[in-house]
Amino acid sequence: MPTFLGPNQYGKAENRVVRITRDGATHHIRDLNVSVSLSGDMDEVHYSGSNANVLPTDTTKNTVYAFAKEHGIDSPEQFGIHLARHFVAGQDAIHRARIRIEEYTWERIEHSGEGAHSFVRKGQETRLTQVTHDGSSWEVVSGLRDLTVMNSTDSEFRGYVKDKYTTLPEAHDRVLATDVSARWRFRWSDDAEDAPDWEESYVQVKGHLLRAFAETYSRSLQQTLYAMGARIIDHRDEIDEVRFSLPNKHHFLVDLAPFGLENDTADGAVYFAADRPYGLIEATVLRDGREAKIPADLTNL
Amino acid sequence: MPTFLGPNQYGKAENRVVRITRDGATHHIRDLNVSVSLSGDMDEVHYSGSNANVLPTDTTKNTVYAFAKEHGIDSPEQFGIHLARHFVAGQDAIHRARIRIEEYTWERIEHSGEGAHSFVRKGQETRLTQVTHDGSSWEVVSGLRDLTVMNSTDSEFRGYVKDKYTTLPEAHDRVLATDVSARWRFRWSDDAEDAPDWEESYVQVKGHLLRAFAETYSRSLQQTLYAMGARIIDHRDEIDEVRFSLPNKHHFLVDLAPFGLENDTADGAVYFAADRPYGLIEATVLRDGREAKIPADLTNL
Amino acid sequence: MPTFLGPNQYGKAENRVVRITRDGATHHIRDLNVSVSLSGDMDEVHYSGSNANVLPTDTTKNTVYAFAKEHGIDSPEQFGIHLARHFVAGQDAIHRARIRIEEYTWERIEHSGEGAHSFVRKGQETRLTQVTHDGSSWEVVSGLRDLTVMNSTDSEFRGYVKDKYTTLPEAHDRVLATDVSARWRFRWSDDAEDAPDWEESYVQVKGHLLRAFAETYSRSLQQTLYAMGARIIDHRDEIDEVRFSLPNKHHFLVDLAPFGLENDTADGAVYFAADRPYGLIEATVLRDGREAKIPADLTNL
Amino acid sequence: MPTFLGPNQYGKAENRVVRITRDGATHHIRDLNVSVSLSGDMDEVHYSGSNANVLPTDTTKNTVYAFAKEHGIDSPEQFGIHLARHFVAGQDAIHRARIRIEEYTWERIEHSGEGAHSFVRKGQETRLTQVTHDGSSWEVVSGLRDLTVMNSTDSEFRGYVKDKYTTLPEAHDRVLATDVSARWRFRWSDDAEDAPDWEESYVQVKGHLLRAFAETYSRSLQQTLYAMGARIIDHRDEIDEVRFSLPNKHHFLVDLAPFGLENDTADGAVYFAADRPYGLIEATVLRDGREAKIPADLTNL
Repeated sequence: MPTFLGPNQYGKAENRVVRITRDGATHHIRDLNVSVSLSGDMDEVHYSGSNANVLPTDTTKNTVYAFAKEHGIDSPEQFGIHLARHFVAGQDAIHRARIRIEEYTWERIEHSGEGAHSFVRKGQETRLTQVTHDGSSWEVVSGLRDLTVMNSTDSEFRGYVKDKYTTLPEAHDRVLATDVSARWRFRWSDDAEDAPDWEESYVQVKGHLLRAFAETYSRSLQQTLYAMGARIIDHRDEIDEVRFSLPNKHHFLVDLAPFGLENDTADGAVYFAADRPYGLIEATVLRDGREAKIPADLTNL
Repeated sequence: MPTFLGPNQYGKAENRVVRITRDGATHHIRDLNVSVSLSGDMDEVHYSGSNANVLPTDTTKNTVYAFAKEHGIDSPEQFGIHLARHFVAGQDAIHRARIRIEEYTWERIEHSGEGAHSFVRKGQETRLTQVTHDGSSWEVVSGLRDLTVMNSTDSEFRGYVKDKYTTLPEAHDRVLATDVSARWRFRWSDDAEDAPDWEESYVQVKGHLLRAFAETYSRSLQQTLYAMGARIIDHRDEIDEVRFSLPNKHHFLVDLAPFGLENDTADGAVYFAADRPYGLIEATVLRDGREAKIPADLTNL
Repeated sequence: MPTFLGPNQYGKAENRVVRITRDGATHHIRDLNVSVSLSGDMDEVHYSGSNANVLPTDTTKNTVYAFAKEHGIDSPEQFGIHLARHFVAGQDAIHRARIRIEEYTWERIEHSGEGAHSFVRKGQETRLTQVTHDGSSWEVVSGLRDLTVMNSTDSEFRGYVKDKYTTLPEAHDRVLATDVSARWRFRWSDDAEDAPDWEESYVQVKGHLLRAFAETYSRSLQQTLYAMGARIIDHRDEIDEVRFSLPNKHHFLVDLAPFGLENDTADGAVYFAADRPYGLIEATVLRDGREAKIPADLTNL
Repeated sequence: MPTFLGPNQYGKAENRVVRITRDGATHHIRDLNVSVSLSGDMDEVHYSGSNANVLPTDTTKNTVYAFAKEHGIDSPEQFGIHLARHFVAGQDAIHRARIRIEEYTWERIEHSGEGAHSFVRKGQETRLTQVTHDGSSWEVVSGLRDLTVMNSTDSEFRGYVKDKYTTLPEAHDRVLATDVSARWRFRWSDDAEDAPDWEESYVQVKGHLLRAFAETYSRSLQQTLYAMGARIIDHRDEIDEVRFSLPNKHHFLVDLAPFGLENDTADGAVYFAADRPYGLIEATVLRDGREAKIPADLTNL
């Protein structure tokens, strides 16, 4: 045979699971989107179509729902760990499980009625996690996407390289805006160690990320990126690596001179918020002595 | 000629305007998406291609940015009124202007640095307005979309018609969730009258809508819809009509009996959040003595 | 009660139905997305939550699938007619039914194997129809969306109005591109008349639309729009009205002078294809003596 | 410093470039979306915000447009090679350039007018390429996404593992549908070798992929995947590796028994086309003796 099978995985993607817990008339929501990917001894299903080693993707879906009932959802990370352990332990042919989870957040609606079972979706960032398990060690990478932030000043862009295709004027006071997509890898990798407090960790990491964005006078988006990553690692012992993908959401001062209007960055500046193209800044920040394991591209090709 | 021109309009759509005002080191953002539609004496451009009566859509774009600078953005409604008045007053051939605006909301990032010019996009609903002006009277319809809400109990669905295609079992305790799309029409139509406080009105309408959703024990999504509209009209004198389009975002209890698990609506219930199909409930609520003017379909075909 | 119920409708939206027919080893696909909206005697469900007149949206979904089996899908229009007739005839409380259908087209994959049951989705425009029935008369509006077309020359834009906000230079040779969204209303409204050949009509209308776009030297997008509508009405007796919504997908010549390159519309011109804002041209073309019934806005607010 | 910089890259993403060439009255379109990512000696911009080594993303955008004019666009691959070579050769601080390109295809509109400059967007798959260059060697990975295919028979799924969460019945005749996302890596890596005919290669690879899908009796989607990859490598000497990500677009036979209707896979079967969840099958097929270099995940987390 002139060809052979390379890396492969399969499973059921985007299982939408909502679990409601009741503490008397006070309810709580966990709202997840869970994707399962399994790999192992899968040559035959590719070469001959024999499914003798294949646990159906439908079964992986059923398992997600059954586990939500049986084990509850304390955190996306913990839920992913339960699932990954089950798949690897349960089937000889499965050597690795990777569980990806998105979580959507709900806030309570304040009202004067009885009970506490009314919610409005927060709508801000989506929380993410990916748990990978090979039967012995663990890798947990959590993160967020679509957290849109803006500094309306304290950003400049100067002193860059000029070649024959450079026309950009230097900016001494610009708007800096981006949709933060971040991933952070936990040091925890072994059942023998204490696991982090996943819930507390998420809240703290997001807080540090936002405050570092706000408090950094920015000479480049790369500098702001690094400041966010370094602050997370400095403050959160459980994290060894942070990866960002930051589109530079350009806000261009509109030229209003043809209409006799001055439009500089002083009070009342008017910007055109552009769609495409956009700058895209991607980098990893690492704790001293650690190596990068989060893939360099959040999206490939 | 065996054909003739019917209703028509033209303009520049989706002008993305961001305006930053500075109160010392404290900044404020208005972030809009503005669409202009003009109509009037436009037969010739359709019949022969003569542009003699056509103000270019590029000019309408320029006007949006220039007006943002000159007049500021006190509210989407007021900004739309400035623009509509200008287009109808400025060109004999333009008899009607319709301005549609979406607004995106930003919250401050709390931090310990100096200044107050760091923001995170709220990410919840999008605020909407549509201002229509024909040179004498005004119609202002405001609204919101993508406000996702859920009651995790206090909803049932029983006592409905059964025909030969009915298989749905009655529900005594279900999740009720929807993405609220709402429009409300202001009574104000004449420059001689005092205009409403557009900013305060929006905050109050959204609040009543949410509280009515939360406080209504629901026997049908139609009943909840009506309760939301009636509450707005009862409490907000400036509004004569409210229109809703409410997808019923189905949350199905997962059948876990094959795995020996009971999954009823008691503590820890697990739901499958479905995408399509979905129920779609649309209706208008009117103040006594008023007639419906908001189009019955938010989307046509 | 200080409020009352205005126009309303309900039903199950976006029922995805695929039907495969077999002619020996040759298969045929119809691939639809069907939305049902019913209205009638529905005051009580809004006022009190009584569902006594409510056929569940789940039942309307079941009906769509059962009818696909029982009646087949000869065309989206005919399928919508079957459904609308059923809902109005079947329930005293339902006085009007509106069925909206999207259809996706598949092409055969050419290959040297046996059978003819392999397909690739065409991926071009989406075919649309909306059938409305009140128990006596019919309205059928069909159409398409997302048909993207471009003329790389034979388009200009000159002789327009200039006001103080006009900066646009006249264009003597420009790219004209748009995503065609079109709706056309059939004259047929009465069971006593012969219905059109819905399948043939769609093919012919699309062909006339494309050829009119290609063959029109354009002085404005409005002129091109009118030419497309007039040609359809001239050639297709069964159609009385055509409505278009045409975004002007701007292609801007890039200024390459700073790099010593001339970039005019001669051979090898390079354009920037912009996203937003875009011109938006909307108009109705009518057969002499008919009146406009297609809503002026394909999207409201 | 307790943290340090890991892998990083930056550039301008999604530059929309359209180039029109004229052969008399016959025009030709290339319609691309080009993203540039550069990396190299970029520590300082992250650590201190110094832009001394940073060629602005705006300059990379200008370069894309200028190169489209100067060099033309013979193929996405060749255009990417020109750009990558330029960035690495032009700046000492830039050690690697990665160019990603999407291409959209246009067909001619047939008509009876003069000239051949009218087009309709084909709307089927999007063609992709990624060119990576480090100053000495090259990696070219091309591909496509959103090519939706269906076999309406000749697919089964049987003989799989059953565990306690398995409820799926075996399928002896099912619909097999997927949105093909494929990437293939060329052997070419060195300027000294002859480059492939990129245009011809794309056409041939797509053809083999489609025919392998059509001609394979499928016992699992994995088997179909492997057949597609193996056929490409067997027939196309220039390709060493193919990677697929194939969502299993489930088409479920609707249970119509409650309505007295039999709905099996014989003539006239009616299916529900589901959205989520979906099976997701991902694998690489390699030429004998080669190793996998395309990332295992087309999307990370």
